[in-house]
Amino acid sequence: MAHDLLNGKKGIIFGALDNRSIAWKVAEMAHQEGARFVLTNTPAAIRMGDIHQLAMKCGNADIIPADGTQVKDLEYLFREAMKRMGGKVDFILHSIGMSMNVRKKRAYSDVDYDFFAKTLDISAISLHKILQTAFKLDAIHEGGSVVSLSYIAAQRTLYGYNDMADAKALLESITRSFGYIYGREKKVRINTISQSPTLTTAGSGVKGMQDLMDFTERMSPLGNADADECAGFCIVLFSDISRKITMQNIFHDGGFSSMGMSLRAMSMYSRSLDCEDCPPVD
Amino acid sequence: MAHDLLNGKKGIIFGALDNRSIAWKVAEMAHQEGARFVLTNTPAAIRMGDIHQLAMKCGNADIIPADGTQVKDLEYLFREAMKRMGGKVDFILHSIGMSMNVRKKRAYSDVDYDFFAKTLDISAISLHKILQTAFKLDAIHEGGSVVSLSYIAAQRTLYGYNDMADAKALLESITRSFGYIYGREKKVRINTISQSPTLTTAGSGVKGMQDLMDFTERMSPLGNADADECAGFCIVLFSDISRKITMQNIFHDGGFSSMGMSLRAMSMYSRSLDCEDCPPVD
Amino acid sequence: MAHDLLNGKKGIIFGALDNRSIAWKVAEMAHQEGARFVLTNTPAAIRMGDIHQLAMKCGNADIIPADGTQVKDLEYLFREAMKRMGGKVDFILHSIGMSMNVRKKRAYSDVDYDFFAKTLDISAISLHKILQTAFKLDAIHEGGSVVSLSYIAAQRTLYGYNDMADAKALLESITRSFGYIYGREKKVRINTISQSPTLTTAGSGVKGMQDLMDFTERMSPLGNADADECAGFCIVLFSDISRKITMQNIFHDGGFSSMGMSLRAMSMYSRSLDCEDCPPVD
Amino acid sequence: MAHDLLNGKKGIIFGALDNRSIAWKVAEMAHQEGARFVLTNTPAAIRMGDIHQLAMKCGNADIIPADGTQVKDLEYLFREAMKRMGGKVDFILHSIGMSMNVRKKRAYSDVDYDFFAKTLDISAISLHKILQTAFKLDAIHEGGSVVSLSYIAAQRTLYGYNDMADAKALLESITRSFGYIYGREKKVRINTISQSPTLTTAGSGVKGMQDLMDFTERMSPLGNADADECAGFCIVLFSDISRKITMQNIFHDGGFSSMGMSLRAMSMYSRSLDCEDCPPVD
Repeated sequence: MAHDLLNGKKGIIFGALDNRSIAWKVAEMAHQEGARFVLTNTPAAIRMGDIHQLAMKCGNADIIPADGTQVKDLEYLFREAMKRMGGKVDFILHSIGMSMNVRKKRAYSDVDYDFFAKTLDISAISLHKILQTAFKLDAIHEGGSVVSLSYIAAQRTLYGYNDMADAKALLESITRSFGYIYGREKKVRINTISQSPTLTTAGSGVKGMQDLMDFTERMSPLGNADADECAGFCIVLFSDISRKITMQNIFHDGGFSSMGMSLRAMSMYSRSLDCEDCPPVD
Repeated sequence: MAHDLLNGKKGIIFGALDNRSIAWKVAEMAHQEGARFVLTNTPAAIRMGDIHQLAMKCGNADIIPADGTQVKDLEYLFREAMKRMGGKVDFILHSIGMSMNVRKKRAYSDVDYDFFAKTLDISAISLHKILQTAFKLDAIHEGGSVVSLSYIAAQRTLYGYNDMADAKALLESITRSFGYIYGREKKVRINTISQSPTLTTAGSGVKGMQDLMDFTERMSPLGNADADECAGFCIVLFSDISRKITMQNIFHDGGFSSMGMSLRAMSMYSRSLDCEDCPPVD
Repeated sequence: MAHDLLNGKKGIIFGALDNRSIAWKVAEMAHQEGARFVLTNTPAAIRMGDIHQLAMKCGNADIIPADGTQVKDLEYLFREAMKRMGGKVDFILHSIGMSMNVRKKRAYSDVDYDFFAKTLDISAISLHKILQTAFKLDAIHEGGSVVSLSYIAAQRTLYGYNDMADAKALLESITRSFGYIYGREKKVRINTISQSPTLTTAGSGVKGMQDLMDFTERMSPLGNADADECAGFCIVLFSDISRKITMQNIFHDGGFSSMGMSLRAMSMYSRSLDCEDCPPVD
Repeated sequence: MAHDLLNGKKGIIFGALDNRSIAWKVAEMAHQEGARFVLTNTPAAIRMGDIHQLAMKCGNADIIPADGTQVKDLEYLFREAMKRMGGKVDFILHSIGMSMNVRKKRAYSDVDYDFFAKTLDISAISLHKILQTAFKLDAIHEGGSVVSLSYIAAQRTLYGYNDMADAKALLESITRSFGYIYGREKKVRINTISQSPTLTTAGSGVKGMQDLMDFTERMSPLGNADADECAGFCIVLFSDISRKITMQNIFHDGGFSSMGMSLRAMSMYSRSLDCEDCPPVD
């Protein structure tokens, strides 16, 4: 690629951990497209991951630690980002999600409610906190763009995805609710991309991930979308070409969301039905 | 059941062929619930099927032949139905669908366009013709209810369902478009029920039906809904209890439409992935 | 009505405050339909409202106070309800919602995050707590039904509805997520009804409610659905006639959700456009 | 703009009439972005419109007349286009729609069924014919992209939009159905853009258009999207950046589709409610 789509634009990218992160790919591509940006993550994630390596690859991007659930951190982040980049930002990537119920293998019928509240706070309300903080500080340029990463679990239940499904539904709702306000007041657009299941370090904790990805690969006429392809579409949504799209959840998933049953997935499924020597299935 | 839900109501039921038809079950149940109605189908379907047997079971219901694609037939049907039952009707069931492209095994990338037009005319535009005819003859009571049977293929592509998917999408659109007009002018409501795959004589022609039904059974937390259960919900929509629901497509499918992946379906799928001795799959 | 639809069924009804509450109408109608049930609400709502009067009208129904956000209260409620009614329950109505941000007139771009968390806890997570508590105590019969009241703000932004929109989106997601688990394990179905704006004591706090209701009345071909009509459809969802519907959000709104623009609403709007003497509008 | 997004790509653009057409803007922008393409329209539209002027502005693009409802015309078009451009095409714009029922002011409850069939054939089935013809001639490159223009009437009823609503629903269904086949076989993606109401020469025939556009402008936080902006997003969908998006309908509408009620639209509406001297409204 490299189409100068973000020439002169400034941004903040939340959630790059290592080179499997979608946020990592977005940063690389935004850099190629001419953007300047600040990388941010929690102090713990900064220690654990390779974000410094990413910063170097992206023209020595600044790294400013911030916990997306802490308004004070976010205020500092926006003030500091505007100071270092010399003005308001044009785009923000929100790629944040975590569920302690998933990590601790609590079933959805046995969740811990403190964990549940944390899942929502980290994975969804953090977007509201980022937006409200930016709004109060007037930190996003008119016509700016905010993108958050979602998943089809917001619409359809997948076993094992647990309270993250509810978090994604909440995230998409906040996108609409704040999209109205920020659009009306500042022409800032806010959208989510509903991405194919992607083997990030975060995603790899979800149960049965490999088998699910085989299923979605066979269901989707174009196959699963990968992290690089997702990053490409994030760039589109940050750029001026999409400046009248807001409050939307756009499926970037090889067609999976519009499929009921494909021939390829059914063939794999039918093989199991036809198998006489296979172990019994409930 | 038998809750007197349709006491004193009059109706017209399209599409009962034999005792596997959903329309057949609707007729039986409407009779139990106190309704009087006319049965109708094309002359050919009347000859091929067992509709006379059904009529006898339903208090000697009248049978009036009509081709749902012929406005003249429909005019005769409504006039005659009102004459024989002594007044306007309260409910109509539209359970009509047929694709020559499916029957002749024309792939969706090789459809015959005359067949395609026929699929739409029989399976979707027939609803418009019924409604427009009724509207002009003022043949439906204020507060009356029209129900048509749809399928999730209207929203999501299933291989092999072919141009019937497009017909169902068109059917649901006509439901909304005419639902607005008929609701505004006569408080008549029009809805579709999106039913689980059901082994009717019509449905049994669809490719890979048995395997698909195994999949949807395992995906749906309540299992597939059967024809009797579907009929029960038709009765609800005909009755006064649902008199403010219109222009809707209601999924009656054991939860399938809201599922992304269930544990039970995934187990069956994974067994195929794990099978080393199984024949290769594309 | 009175069709014996809930003959012999036992239930728990959350959220009846006074005779404008939808939950109040549901209780009255469930009583007429042959059900026995427990009424519940927070101690404060029990003091403020007229629930004792309702209990008397419903065959001296038991009142058991419980705060829907407190698992301990819910455990007590289910144990006590099963004891008093002599067995598991068949249906539950969840009609609970409250936003301090709305009450305190905090704009959506200036919410208080403790209030936000409370909105979600009271209006959405309470449903999860009820379900998880019931699931652990095995307090709902196989085939039982849980209904919660939602609003179209879960899908589309309405100014002034604030964080309640996000709560409704979360509520509908929990309905799907738990609907899968409870359906799979116990054939219990869980649905939401998305009701027209309704002038309950709770709803009357929402800004510009009267004007909005005029708009939705003119947009909906059947007009707004009222609380009695909503109650009728709750009864349907509790009854066995709808036993294969789960994980759904059903619009009970006179057709509003399927309208883009009606002639009647446009006429009112156009009159303002044509008005030369009217005060200027932003 | 001008980001070289379509460098070296070849296409066919259906439906440019005059400089208010969205297809016109797409052609201009595709030319700027480095594409080479053939312009096509019916012979009548070519006579009536200014397409020769457009061809000159676009590097003397070839004009090949074709009626989108005639498979023979389409076969000629694809063969000729491949011959003149020296190979398969990469992108196709379908911007075709017409309803005789609208033109002749036939109400939706009094449509002419020959007109109705024509509306569907011209506005929706033409997309299938284009795709099937291209598929058989293997006329689209792997990874190619087809975009068609839709409208929210496919989901929500707008008075006066008549059978065009049904045509758009059918168009979106064909997009999914063929998107599965063409994606699976050739990695070709097919999507619709659901655009704000736009004052094209075609759109200007729709009743009450100006007032409706005032309403949608006030409802949409970013205001209505115009034809230029729509064209920009078409370019994105043609380009390689969106190569994993298929079978989708993407709202390009300033946020309208996600709005229930905005403050600005409500203020205009309320002014009418408050007007004492205004003429009565039904």
